[in-house]
Amino acid sequence: MKFSFKNDYSEGCHPRILESLLRYNTDQQAGYGEDEYSLKAKNIIKRKIDNKDADVYFVSGGTQANLIVISSVLKPYQCVISASIGHILNNETGAIEATGHKVLSIETEDGKVKPSDIQPVLDNHRNIPHQVMPKLVYISNSTELGTIYRKEELENLSEFCRENNMYLFMDGARLGHAITSEISDLSLKDIAKLTDIFYLGGTKNGALIGEAIIINNQSLQEDFAFNIKQKGALLAKGRLLGIQFLELMTDDLYFDLAKNANQQAMKIKKALSEKGISFLSDTFTNQIFPILNHQIIDILSEKFEFYVWKNVDENSSAVRLITSWNTSDEAVEDFIKIIDQNI
Amino acid sequence: MKFSFKNDYSEGCHPRILESLLRYNTDQQAGYGEDEYSLKAKNIIKRKIDNKDADVYFVSGGTQANLIVISSVLKPYQCVISASIGHILNNETGAIEATGHKVLSIETEDGKVKPSDIQPVLDNHRNIPHQVMPKLVYISNSTELGTIYRKEELENLSEFCRENNMYLFMDGARLGHAITSEISDLSLKDIAKLTDIFYLGGTKNGALIGEAIIINNQSLQEDFAFNIKQKGALLAKGRLLGIQFLELMTDDLYFDLAKNANQQAMKIKKALSEKGISFLSDTFTNQIFPILNHQIIDILSEKFEFYVWKNVDENSSAVRLITSWNTSDEAVEDFIKIIDQNI
Amino acid sequence: MKFSFKNDYSEGCHPRILESLLRYNTDQQAGYGEDEYSLKAKNIIKRKIDNKDADVYFVSGGTQANLIVISSVLKPYQCVISASIGHILNNETGAIEATGHKVLSIETEDGKVKPSDIQPVLDNHRNIPHQVMPKLVYISNSTELGTIYRKEELENLSEFCRENNMYLFMDGARLGHAITSEISDLSLKDIAKLTDIFYLGGTKNGALIGEAIIINNQSLQEDFAFNIKQKGALLAKGRLLGIQFLELMTDDLYFDLAKNANQQAMKIKKALSEKGISFLSDTFTNQIFPILNHQIIDILSEKFEFYVWKNVDENSSAVRLITSWNTSDEAVEDFIKIIDQNI
Amino acid sequence: MKFSFKNDYSEGCHPRILESLLRYNTDQQAGYGEDEYSLKAKNIIKRKIDNKDADVYFVSGGTQANLIVISSVLKPYQCVISASIGHILNNETGAIEATGHKVLSIETEDGKVKPSDIQPVLDNHRNIPHQVMPKLVYISNSTELGTIYRKEELENLSEFCRENNMYLFMDGARLGHAITSEISDLSLKDIAKLTDIFYLGGTKNGALIGEAIIINNQSLQEDFAFNIKQKGALLAKGRLLGIQFLELMTDDLYFDLAKNANQQAMKIKKALSEKGISFLSDTFTNQIFPILNHQIIDILSEKFEFYVWKNVDENSSAVRLITSWNTSDEAVEDFIKIIDQNI
Repeated sequence: MKFSFKNDYSEGCHPRILESLLRYNTDQQAGYGEDEYSLKAKNIIKRKIDNKDADVYFVSGGTQANLIVISSVLKPYQCVISASIGHILNNETGAIEATGHKVLSIETEDGKVKPSDIQPVLDNHRNIPHQVMPKLVYISNSTELGTIYRKEELENLSEFCRENNMYLFMDGARLGHAITSEISDLSLKDIAKLTDIFYLGGTKNGALIGEAIIINNQSLQEDFAFNIKQKGALLAKGRLLGIQFLELMTDDLYFDLAKNANQQAMKIKKALSEKGISFLSDTFTNQIFPILNHQIIDILSEKFEFYVWKNVDENSSAVRLITSWNTSDEAVEDFIKIIDQNI
Repeated sequence: MKFSFKNDYSEGCHPRILESLLRYNTDQQAGYGEDEYSLKAKNIIKRKIDNKDADVYFVSGGTQANLIVISSVLKPYQCVISASIGHILNNETGAIEATGHKVLSIETEDGKVKPSDIQPVLDNHRNIPHQVMPKLVYISNSTELGTIYRKEELENLSEFCRENNMYLFMDGARLGHAITSEISDLSLKDIAKLTDIFYLGGTKNGALIGEAIIINNQSLQEDFAFNIKQKGALLAKGRLLGIQFLELMTDDLYFDLAKNANQQAMKIKKALSEKGISFLSDTFTNQIFPILNHQIIDILSEKFEFYVWKNVDENSSAVRLITSWNTSDEAVEDFIKIIDQNI
Repeated sequence: MKFSFKNDYSEGCHPRILESLLRYNTDQQAGYGEDEYSLKAKNIIKRKIDNKDADVYFVSGGTQANLIVISSVLKPYQCVISASIGHILNNETGAIEATGHKVLSIETEDGKVKPSDIQPVLDNHRNIPHQVMPKLVYISNSTELGTIYRKEELENLSEFCRENNMYLFMDGARLGHAITSEISDLSLKDIAKLTDIFYLGGTKNGALIGEAIIINNQSLQEDFAFNIKQKGALLAKGRLLGIQFLELMTDDLYFDLAKNANQQAMKIKKALSEKGISFLSDTFTNQIFPILNHQIIDILSEKFEFYVWKNVDENSSAVRLITSWNTSDEAVEDFIKIIDQNI
Repeated sequence: MKFSFKNDYSEGCHPRILESLLRYNTDQQAGYGEDEYSLKAKNIIKRKIDNKDADVYFVSGGTQANLIVISSVLKPYQCVISASIGHILNNETGAIEATGHKVLSIETEDGKVKPSDIQPVLDNHRNIPHQVMPKLVYISNSTELGTIYRKEELENLSEFCRENNMYLFMDGARLGHAITSEISDLSLKDIAKLTDIFYLGGTKNGALIGEAIIINNQSLQEDFAFNIKQKGALLAKGRLLGIQFLELMTDDLYFDLAKNANQQAMKIKKALSEKGISFLSDTFTNQIFPILNHQIIDILSEKFEFYVWKNVDENSSAVRLITSWNTSDEAVEDFIKIIDQNI
């Protein structure tokens, strides 16, 4: 059995979550997110972001979170702007368009959206009423390329959105990894202040399922639960989500798990860097994209699974390695050993 | 703490499911339903319905299953017919309409749809192209009133749909309860033969989440997975659904759980009947609707939670009592004791 | 060639409209409704409703007007309430649902919606967030049964909507006929004051195409043009609509045409009444629904076209007769002659 | 009053159309496209494309035609491919996305789509079911840049689509101009053979409104009328469209009008070319894009209206000049005179 670096959702969940599910299993609870675990978990999250007026909702996965948020925020003729690498553009089978909204794509170097990238899009959408109206900026943190937003970058983007009467939405499927990155200067509180709406991803950070949508902008809070129900995302046994987030938020388990994933990736990155290997983008989270020659890729493929991400030249390709909350030291060491022996 | 007869999703899940989740927790598996547990569970289901050409998909909940199935089956101008009591008409926040399709409502006596109820709807929709085209019949088994379809009824309905070039879709959120009802003469195989598409509900029968959509009609199978993904219903950790259904299908746990729920309801029904209490509908599954006077309702409310369903007259109302896979003998006996002491 | 009483859109348009199209034909004008004729026509309409802050838009037809208005007013989880006889429920191929919104149907005696009909619907939609939220009341004036709203009725309905935080939308495909009915006590200004949004129908009252949507409620005005464009309803040669409404509004041609249609219908009604014929509903506009025995229907059918609307008993049916702006005295007299000779 | 070269829909319609509307004005006709003029016009079109099995429908405008065709052809998870300059991408306020479908954009040199442009898009959409499925190729002829498809190009594209199980749809808002271009080797019959569905635009070629959608592929014909009705595009007085196309198709008026527009543009092009002026793209239809210095642009702007299309360098910009069926020799000569005097 090969060890897989293909993604961060190959394993089940952190054992504490299963223990907690077992502990509370026979309690009778109200359905649809009104259970006491969900209520407690929501309160902890509100405390952690220092905003008691925020609204928190739990849903199952990232595509679901994205389509619910975006379709609830926009009017029919409004659209969302995303980096071309964005998950909503490439990996969600047109989920956003299926709710009626265009996604405008902008090219970026590193997966991060800058005001200077957005301005030309706004300039090209002034032919009222013949064009969609850009109203929401969608960003991921960490991005699909493993990069993260620095505090100043997010402040600039946030200010730009406000000035242009747009909302800012952060896809946080890997937000834990972004915040606990060794180079991060952004806290969860910062993010809550600088975005209108964002989510904390559980699925890719040790939960079975679950993303916590957090609505900071009160004008977007009204009737939000209707949207969740209408899109089929309101679990009857909401406890499943509540218990998981309660456990993840307790003792900062959520951040510890992300930190572990990051650290394992950084060990591999360091080993590769020392061998002079270059990377598609310089990342400090749980995704790395080393450029390897095809022989090395073949050798590594005998023991490990990973995606060959992008052809670079005749002899080499960038591969994507993703570590998870559960990636063991042993797997990392085995990988490094092969590197050491072959480069 | 009052015992709740409000619904069949108040508790967690059957302990065997949690044990199974724990047992397989650290295995690395492919995502998005390609894990080995999902594949095994699908095969068992295909064997049980005796149709190796069926397609099986797992999704999280009933509203999600309904909206995915209906929107994938219908062309934009086609619509679905449902009993007025149908879940898609009353309890899903317009989820079907949100995908662009009208739901035509027909009045029924007992929640069950008959060909003679549908014919007038077809007759009233002949003004082409000014009206929607009825193309799908949606039924629930057991129904929202706890009633079930007999074999002959389903055969007639199935034949009527075929003759009228319509599809038949069974919402099986409580299909286990229907099949294991003491008066049922319908098997799972019968249902697979007589419907074009149906689902086996897990959420209301001992799973944490999960409904198994089964597509019998091959013309409806093409590209179905795209619809699941687009609606945000494709779990990254599909194993969560696969492991649950694998466990439920093993040793017929699924049917045993449903049978237990039914039996507990039938005990209460029997006790009430012996006191001369009448019922809103004569049910043989895990939902009963006794008509009680308001004093009795008040007394029962001190120890139990349940919905007062419908006002019947000045002095009495029908209440809805739902038992679950986990409803204990003790809870049932306590309830009956109060009945005995007060009627 | 039989004379047709089937509808009020069998002929072309009033000759003054064609003359006007000819007169201005070679002028170069801005497209998309920015032509000078459209601007003038809008100003006249605003003067006639005594509301300079209203917004006016022209679109081609009724279904288009209905779907644009409703989809622009509602949020995804909100729905519209209509009389069961409403055009949006029966004659628009699910156009409203295709934009994502449920239409709740209420039974009415005469096609008119009363607060007491709506209240139970509101009462039955309190299970938040599991049900759609009623937010808009759709009425037609005149209704599909030819009946009209009296001032007091519209005041009550308007007040009820405001109290319940709902909008009121009047489909005015035959608003000219309603206002000029001999029993009407509602003026165009009243309607503008009492509704949030309504339209003045041209297609059924002497135009080639065209409905004038009038938005009185300023909170519904923002960005409305985007919705028109997005639904494919913004004509490049907006002048076609502008010139027609300019002509119709000049010298009150619009109201004269409607009055003529009404009068011709009333002549037939009077002739039938004098013969003791009864009617499905007592109407004072250009639609009448006399109940005739089948022999008479056969005799009339030799010379006239009309719809047999509804079977009443073994020997008789209600027929629908519609007169138009162009129905000649001769056609009416011929019809009455046959009545006189055969009843 | 300046003469406008801004577009080809500034004037009314060809006088023969108004005469024809007048001639038939008082006839009573069936509604919704069942009038005799529509039926005759459809038959003429079928003869002209030499395909009696084609289906023909008339709608009001281009955005409407595009959204109806695309939403009726695609399943929910399928998408359409368009040149980045395509009308559906830039000028229709997200009308296609509003029906639930993504539009994939491909860069082209001259507005024309080639198989080699599409192939990479197909290659990048193999991650089933996580991405939309490309199923329809949308092209315009003439394109938004005034260029046209040569027969060989359309044959290649048609074959490529068939091989890849995709449909080919031609937006023919300016199809008359394409076919009558002096360099065209494509006939209407060719187009009908090589596309699955296309439309003949009337609005930009002498009609008041109207595009004739022609469905060649019989698998796309079923129930098409429902889609037209549902999108609000079925005119009650369908005669308005039928009479116009009847007139346009008689004596090839349609093609004569387009030819005139082309010729007037070519006169201006020739005059500019003789002065050594270059063009953004080399066009042979009624749109030309000369690159002029800003002084000349200012001088021309005193007497003419046109769009400054694109900044080319510090001193010059490309402008867009569009001629119409009604552009007079006088206007063209005046324009050329200014060119002669100033360059």
